[in-house]
Amino acid sequence: MTHDPIALTTALLAVDSVTPARGQVFDILEAMLVPLGFAVDRFVAGEAPDGPVENLLATRGEGGTHLAFAGHLDVVPPGTGWSSAPFAPEIRGDHLYGRGAVDMKGAIGAFVAACADPQPGGTLSLIITGDEEGPATFGTPALIDRMAALGIAPDLCIVGEPTSVDCLGDMMKIGRRGSVNLWITVPGRQGHVAYPHLADNPIPRLVAILAEIDSIALDHGTDWFQPSNIEVTDITVGNPATNVIPAQASARISIRFNDLHRGAELGALIEGLARRHAPEASVVARVSGEAFLTQPGRLSMIVADSVEAHTGIRPALSTSGGTSDARFLAKLCPVVEFGLCNATMHKLDEAVAVADLVTLRAIYADIIRRTLG
Amino acid sequence: MTHDPIALTTALLAVDSVTPARGQVFDILEAMLVPLGFAVDRFVAGEAPDGPVENLLATRGEGGTHLAFAGHLDVVPPGTGWSSAPFAPEIRGDHLYGRGAVDMKGAIGAFVAACADPQPGGTLSLIITGDEEGPATFGTPALIDRMAALGIAPDLCIVGEPTSVDCLGDMMKIGRRGSVNLWITVPGRQGHVAYPHLADNPIPRLVAILAEIDSIALDHGTDWFQPSNIEVTDITVGNPATNVIPAQASARISIRFNDLHRGAELGALIEGLARRHAPEASVVARVSGEAFLTQPGRLSMIVADSVEAHTGIRPALSTSGGTSDARFLAKLCPVVEFGLCNATMHKLDEAVAVADLVTLRAIYADIIRRTLG
Ligand SMILES: [Zn+2]
Ligand SMILES: [Zn+2]
Repeated sequence: MTHDPIALTTALLAVDSVTPARGQVFDILEAMLVPLGFAVDRFVAGEAPDGPVENLLATRGEGGTHLAFAGHLDVVPPGTGWSSAPFAPEIRGDHLYGRGAVDMKGAIGAFVAACADPQPGGTLSLIITGDEEGPATFGTPALIDRMAALGIAPDLCIVGEPTSVDCLGDMMKIGRRGSVNLWITVPGRQGHVAYPHLADNPIPRLVAILAEIDSIALDHGTDWFQPSNIEVTDITVGNPATNVIPAQASARISIRFNDLHRGAELGALIEGLARRHAPEASVVARVSGEAFLTQPGRLSMIVADSVEAHTGIRPALSTSGGTSDARFLAKLCPVVEFGLCNATMHKLDEAVAVADLVTLRAIYADIIRRTLG
Repeated sequence: MTHDPIALTTALLAVDSVTPARGQVFDILEAMLVPLGFAVDRFVAGEAPDGPVENLLATRGEGGTHLAFAGHLDVVPPGTGWSSAPFAPEIRGDHLYGRGAVDMKGAIGAFVAACADPQPGGTLSLIITGDEEGPATFGTPALIDRMAALGIAPDLCIVGEPTSVDCLGDMMKIGRRGSVNLWITVPGRQGHVAYPHLADNPIPRLVAILAEIDSIALDHGTDWFQPSNIEVTDITVGNPATNVIPAQASARISIRFNDLHRGAELGALIEGLARRHAPEASVVARVSGEAFLTQPGRLSMIVADSVEAHTGIRPALSTSGGTSDARFLAKLCPVVEFGLCNATMHKLDEAVAVADLVTLRAIYADIIRRTLG
């Protein structure tokens, strides 16, 4: 196999690997890495409904600084309406089309191509999961457990998510907000609207809770994060009868929060608030991920310098957007995310500029040289 | 046919007349009235889904004071779980069981039995619909149109709804609250919770509307009415995705109001309130009935005196509960509602005390004597 990033990416795009991914797409990646001198460790984890999921660890070299590249081979479902088959990659004009082109088989292809350059020293590894787009229960968390068991401990980590916005190199991520969903349920007593004294309408209490939630300003943002944000995303009563006072009312809340908060603390805040209006309310919180921040330092400087050297652009340091697997990896070592343009991610006709794949290979190679050299 | 109220009621209960009612149950009533000297006019009105509905007008005598008795032969569906078949009337212990026993075939049976007494003068009529429990579109309103066309204009009206609560005679109704339902919809713009600036969540605006609605006191009640009451009966967003800001949020409101208000005015009040929080909100109002009050006077005095004469109890003058067809009849003349105990109405094992049928016949006969004599 050639070490051209376009050929490598095309080979990965030719396989349907809708999340959770297993098998063939990992065979192809393994076949790329073994000739480059990587020791490859593959394993399948978990059971239905969140699994089974395949994961792959590859390492080359020993001792010295350890740089890890993390990414995922699974993709979101293509949907219908593509101009060409989503798993039959095709170059049209300046772009290579296929589901996963930017999110993120293109970044994996570029990184593998960069690994064909001589390694200046240290340890290089790839941490690749088949479940980033799904629940991720048996994806990167399982890889982190496996690394702990094998004594693999990176010093620095690059995640290949598509962080660029308008052109390759304009943005990198040094953190992500955390995410917590909350379900609030207020019980009442059903009855007839003509006899309200015999019933107990739970809606006014839920409305009071939501009005107070809407008035909360959790913070005013930090040097690196925008303000934390609360959205009420759903309200459910489910009462079809116009003359009936309902027995229950509930709402769902989504909070995206910066590193001034922890998910459990926000859950307790909302629970306390709800209980003040409705002592019998129940609040269930599910933390999808805590906020993390890699303080700007050596790693972000190396990445920014490498991006600027090959694109002429100094990337903005951002913490915006949704969660990524970087939230798990941040527990191990400093993590920075940098990758392709995200304009077409998760959309029909997902595509990467062919030139961007070549530039990204050069950026990743530069990062390897500067971190391990 | 005997003029025993128990036999008459039993004959009416033996027919399944789930709303809207037509045919056989009206045949039976007509066969009771014709031998008593009533001129009977039956007609079927309306089409699906709210029709067809059968209605019956019966008149006896001419000139003088005109007393009308209004009622309905339709019943609500029996449901399952009865101790005896709901349309096979059966006396067990002191009670006669059957769907419609108290609401309100029993009152019709008692009134017809009372009509067997010599009429002291004036005009007596029965205004009987087959659709009071349903939408009522082609029920009493059609009867009122028919009466206008035929020049039938009562001076006083008794409605035989089950107004008694703990024992026969403890309550009569001299009015009813009005009822209006409102649907409020607030549009927004759907988006991802991670990018709230690109979306427009309609829920905070709906919550603000509902919080203000919950703070409204429409009035403090009147001499004869309790305070008007607003209930939020449903909220619908219908957003299953935890990470999505919804495109729309709506709520349903039910207002029961006294004679200080009109339905349309309340609709305008809520619409104005909603528009202040959400200029793009839509508000749809549907008035089920306006409030009415028959000021205590000659009719209520006669009814109360007749009740007290046969039960020893002076009935309370009430305006509580849901709507009834009295709201239509109140446009014609003073209306008072008096009938059996409502404890089992619309319930399984609906039943009337046999003794109450006998007493109610005597009360109705007394009312006829005092109004027409
Ligand atoms: Zn991704
Ligand atoms: Zn009724």
